[in-house]
Amino acid sequence: MRAFTDERDWAKFHDPKSLILALVGEVGELAELFQWLPADEAVQLAGTDPLRRRAGEEMADVLAYLVRLADVLDIDLAEAAMKKLENSAERFPAADFRGEAPEKA
Amino acid sequence: MRAFTDERDWAKFHDPKSLILALVGEVGELAELFQWLPADEAVQLAGTDPLRRRAGEEMADVLAYLVRLADVLDIDLAEAAMKKLENSAERFPAADFRGEAPEKA
Amino acid sequence: MRAFTDERDWAKFHDPKSLILALVGEVGELAELFQWLPADEAVQLAGTDPLRRRAGEEMADVLAYLVRLADVLDIDLAEAAMKKLENSAERFPAADFRGEAPEKA
Amino acid sequence: MRAFTDERDWAKFHDPKSLILALVGEVGELAELFQWLPADEAVQLAGTDPLRRRAGEEMADVLAYLVRLADVLDIDLAEAAMKKLENSAERFPAADFRGEAPEKA
Repeated sequence: MRAFTDERDWAKFHDPKSLILALVGEVGELAELFQWLPADEAVQLAGTDPLRRRAGEEMADVLAYLVRLADVLDIDLAEAAMKKLENSAERFPAADFRGEAPEKA
Repeated sequence: MRAFTDERDWAKFHDPKSLILALVGEVGELAELFQWLPADEAVQLAGTDPLRRRAGEEMADVLAYLVRLADVLDIDLAEAAMKKLENSAERFPAADFRGEAPEKA
Repeated sequence: MRAFTDERDWAKFHDPKSLILALVGEVGELAELFQWLPADEAVQLAGTDPLRRRAGEEMADVLAYLVRLADVLDIDLAEAAMKKLENSAERFPAADFRGEAPEKA
Repeated sequence: MRAFTDERDWAKFHDPKSLILALVGEVGELAELFQWLPADEAVQLAGTDPLRRRAGEEMADVLAYLVRLADVLDIDLAEAAMKKLENSAERFPAADFRGEAPEKA
């Protein structure tokens, strides 16, 4: 993403607020793919094209802007993810939360 | 994320539409961190805690649900991202789009 | 919203991109309320407090930022909504789309 | 929106989670219109077409799904909005918050 951006001289557009708006745009496109599907058929319907290919493309776009935002903020996304997962594991002990949706996980 | 989910028996909550809503929730929290910051000071302000830590946490949450959705849909997110970046490189040749924001990238 | 904003001298924060990020934040909070509910029980569960009250609050916040954005952009939101509904009625004739989810409505 | 929906027999698609995903899709389209604009030029650029017209259309779509969600949940959106604004006025006294962005408003 950094090379892709630099080759096009697009870094000047990539302040954090603009990148988050771009991320929102891609999340919106992902949401549109699934919005009217019956909840219990979504996995199956996304098992074949064209939905499978399009879901992959929109998820790729979400990841691209997330990675780009991490680069602009000089945040190690993989490290942040591992740390957050460890924190969540402590906040929600398996023994206490088994089978129950926490209000926020 | 798969192990974390299975240990808590939370897979039953993780249909695609629910996971996208959870992703939206985390993107919303990320947006809230930056919403009132002056656009040209956001990078600097996110260079130190507490904003730096919190931005990393929210980005980690976005990634966690994105990765989990990829798992549920059996989509190789890294492969999808590389393919999409190649497609974008073809759609937006550096020579033609240098310095110009495309309507959609 | 305009009076509320002016009394606090907050208009300086309300450029369109910031307001859209604030809108995203509120949509995220709304999504979090419903994310783990079974799709076919959501209406019933939102029929009583605390979910009923909280859903109303988050929807009110979404509306507040949408109305504020309309004010900043000098857009007549009610007129835009009526016009868009007329356009949608033409694009999706009831006779042709009865019972079928259009990809985009 | 209720008449529009009933004429097309679309009410069956309009459970709360699906409607929130549709709302997210429209917010994403609104975000895309503004994402790469310089923050301090956005109001002016949205003062003329095509951006003016498109912003109005996307905001109309956001409102349409918000109103439809309120109908499905039997929530009086106008009443909820007035109540929330009164609460916010109490939580953020003008004298205490003048000119300062609250972390959450």
